[in-house]
Amino acid sequence: MALRAAVRNKSALSALLSQLSPCSSHGRVCVTQRRNNSTSPKIKVDFDQSAGVAVMRLQSPPVNSLSLDFLTELCINLEKLEMDKSCRGLIITSSQPKVFSAGLDIMEMYGKSPESCGEFLRAVQEMWLKLYSSNMITIAAINGSSPAGGCLMSLTCDYRIMADNPRYSIGLNETQLGIVAPFWFKDTMVNTVGHRTTEMALELGLLYNPSEALKISLVDKLVPEDQVLTTATQTMTKWLAIPDHARQITKSMMRKPTIDKLTSNREADIQNLVSFITKDSIQKSLRVYLEMIKKRKG
Amino acid sequence: MALRAAVRNKSALSALLSQLSPCSSHGRVCVTQRRNNSTSPKIKVDFDQSAGVAVMRLQSPPVNSLSLDFLTELCINLEKLEMDKSCRGLIITSSQPKVFSAGLDIMEMYGKSPESCGEFLRAVQEMWLKLYSSNMITIAAINGSSPAGGCLMSLTCDYRIMADNPRYSIGLNETQLGIVAPFWFKDTMVNTVGHRTTEMALELGLLYNPSEALKISLVDKLVPEDQVLTTATQTMTKWLAIPDHARQITKSMMRKPTIDKLTSNREADIQNLVSFITKDSIQKSLRVYLEMIKKRKG
Amino acid sequence: MALRAAVRNKSALSALLSQLSPCSSHGRVCVTQRRNNSTSPKIKVDFDQSAGVAVMRLQSPPVNSLSLDFLTELCINLEKLEMDKSCRGLIITSSQPKVFSAGLDIMEMYGKSPESCGEFLRAVQEMWLKLYSSNMITIAAINGSSPAGGCLMSLTCDYRIMADNPRYSIGLNETQLGIVAPFWFKDTMVNTVGHRTTEMALELGLLYNPSEALKISLVDKLVPEDQVLTTATQTMTKWLAIPDHARQITKSMMRKPTIDKLTSNREADIQNLVSFITKDSIQKSLRVYLEMIKKRKG
Repeated sequence: MALRAAVRNKSALSALLSQLSPCSSHGRVCVTQRRNNSTSPKIKVDFDQSAGVAVMRLQSPPVNSLSLDFLTELCINLEKLEMDKSCRGLIITSSQPKVFSAGLDIMEMYGKSPESCGEFLRAVQEMWLKLYSSNMITIAAINGSSPAGGCLMSLTCDYRIMADNPRYSIGLNETQLGIVAPFWFKDTMVNTVGHRTTEMALELGLLYNPSEALKISLVDKLVPEDQVLTTATQTMTKWLAIPDHARQITKSMMRKPTIDKLTSNREADIQNLVSFITKDSIQKSLRVYLEMIKKRKG
Repeated sequence: MALRAAVRNKSALSALLSQLSPCSSHGRVCVTQRRNNSTSPKIKVDFDQSAGVAVMRLQSPPVNSLSLDFLTELCINLEKLEMDKSCRGLIITSSQPKVFSAGLDIMEMYGKSPESCGEFLRAVQEMWLKLYSSNMITIAAINGSSPAGGCLMSLTCDYRIMADNPRYSIGLNETQLGIVAPFWFKDTMVNTVGHRTTEMALELGLLYNPSEALKISLVDKLVPEDQVLTTATQTMTKWLAIPDHARQITKSMMRKPTIDKLTSNREADIQNLVSFITKDSIQKSLRVYLEMIKKRKG
Repeated sequence: MALRAAVRNKSALSALLSQLSPCSSHGRVCVTQRRNNSTSPKIKVDFDQSAGVAVMRLQSPPVNSLSLDFLTELCINLEKLEMDKSCRGLIITSSQPKVFSAGLDIMEMYGKSPESCGEFLRAVQEMWLKLYSSNMITIAAINGSSPAGGCLMSLTCDYRIMADNPRYSIGLNETQLGIVAPFWFKDTMVNTVGHRTTEMALELGLLYNPSEALKISLVDKLVPEDQVLTTATQTMTKWLAIPDHARQITKSMMRKPTIDKLTSNREADIQNLVSFITKDSIQKSLRVYLEMIKKRKG
């Protein structure tokens, strides 16, 4: 097929992606690509062709915030791997100390126009859609704290291994900041830990330490910090033993209803989130939060 | 707004409520109100304005049965608190010894006309709708047994603290009486303890002692009997730390699909329940049950 | 009613069943019946009229594979018991050593025409529909391994008691064979152990030993092997104490949405499964699997 042929041609790929990626509708991909040429990439992918497994390292200092640039780069990388039939598994981990990902970049939602907010939220949706519906085996090697959007990213994976460090935490803590997790964040968590645990966790914006997270099955396994990646690799071997087509159809059967809820409501969801986030009261909440962070650092 | 202004005017409130409350469609509220003027109130509300927390004490001897009068009074009180923006949290507890609430008053369904049964069941629906969709933080301080409708009332709350007394029990035990829990009782329990536990609990009409209830997460915490209310107050403080608007939207996101199932089917549900409960065989079951209770007392 | 009258007349029954049973649409029931006259029955039913409980023993050597003949005989027996109002409870167990049921008979799906595959899969659906919607109290006395379709059969029951023998296993392991569990297998497991556990179990085709199965609530109780049937009988007594009509309506309330998903999509589901199973790649997977089994035996 023309598509496959084009993908094999590396220089053709970026052109293809700029057409395919929904993030590119405003020419964003090209801008980012150009920008990235002059800055360090925020994501590093090592693909072990013989094993069929890619390791994706999040390396956007200081805390792997999910900015629009970060998300665009992430989506391009995911699309590239997804199209490569030889890539069967993906391990996501962090290169930053102490943090997996701090979640959505608040700066993308503070003092921005509705159009900018919308573009950003569309990119967050895109990340979730790509990860939650991935045909690859996805394993989160959570080697640091993983609040809000960082937790969401982990939840999209097939398996979660977390560093057993009591100073790390994970959870959807949006309400603590005065904001609300979108319904597909909620759905992903319900699918993982059930309705009641999700209800209490989201209402209180709970962050769990690794032991607590394991207890409610928010993560699947705890290991010492220096063994997170090797354990992820070992776990991947077990998953690779299953025939891809059977595993993929099964995964799709489990997740399709949840994915369909967003794909059939993307623009309405964006409008809803934008009108919420651009409210004066919410912008004020974000300012208070940003000032608190600034003070902590100072 | 006119509504808010009216609410501030205490004497205007009851007139307003008699218009708003669905229970009032047959003039029931007024009758009840008049009746209550000559009898003791079945519910006592203490509102601590400075804390923003109300404590609602169920005090209808002997066992806080959910009669039509009780439910009407409960709904009026809930509506009053809900409209008062300064009331952010509600703790529900019992003033009766050994029992939180014995559930629906069987006498309202035994030997009654379909119309009476229907009016009663509409009031039960109304209580559930008001509690399950409350914007307030609701905490059940379960200081006694809580079967059937009493369990339902607890399940609508955001958090459940139960007295650690092995003689107390909690559960939806309707089938033991030969009757069936309505689908929204079932939905509330599924949302709390999951599908499988609910299936077995409802088929067998299981009542759980506090330890068992904690194990299946039917309640969230056990404390010695004399600490139930103080623990509820302490827990409330933690919940009050979360911005109301974010918590409320989150709560609605979690519960709206379940609430919508009833609101879009109220009359059909009532007709269904009435035609079941007025069957000769079911009326006979209720008589057997009532005679058993009478003997126990005798 | 004419139906009831006919049922009381034993000789009329088989004629009636051949009309009622969907398996009979191609005259299959008659063929099977005739065939069974010359072979041993694959299922033995002992009905204790005084207790109102039937024990169904699966006795199709060597491993109670769910062949078309087996399923047809099973459905006829279920229909017979279901119509007999005096039969309130059903215990399903195995007469074969070490195995409850090995699941679907692969031979019915290997090298067969789409029509034959379709007929077989319709019979599997029929078994599931009959068991999952049974008005009887159904208890699985799992006295051996129970993979794939054997696990499904257990999951349809109201209660599962398994022999505590670490050499036995249970689970929906279809993906290990390169095939995929139908959506109603998945739904039944989600209803039993929740979404997340099902997702991982189905993607990896996990088989659980009895202790693991109990831990995730895939089974409800473990007992020594020689006590499986007596425990099932004791458990049945507890369930029989609940009024049938209340338990039946409750069971239907819990399971109807899941059942409706299949009944409104039976033919589409069959077409979907047949087109999958008759693919060259899947037929090859089945051949590899069959050869592996043959070698093991050799």
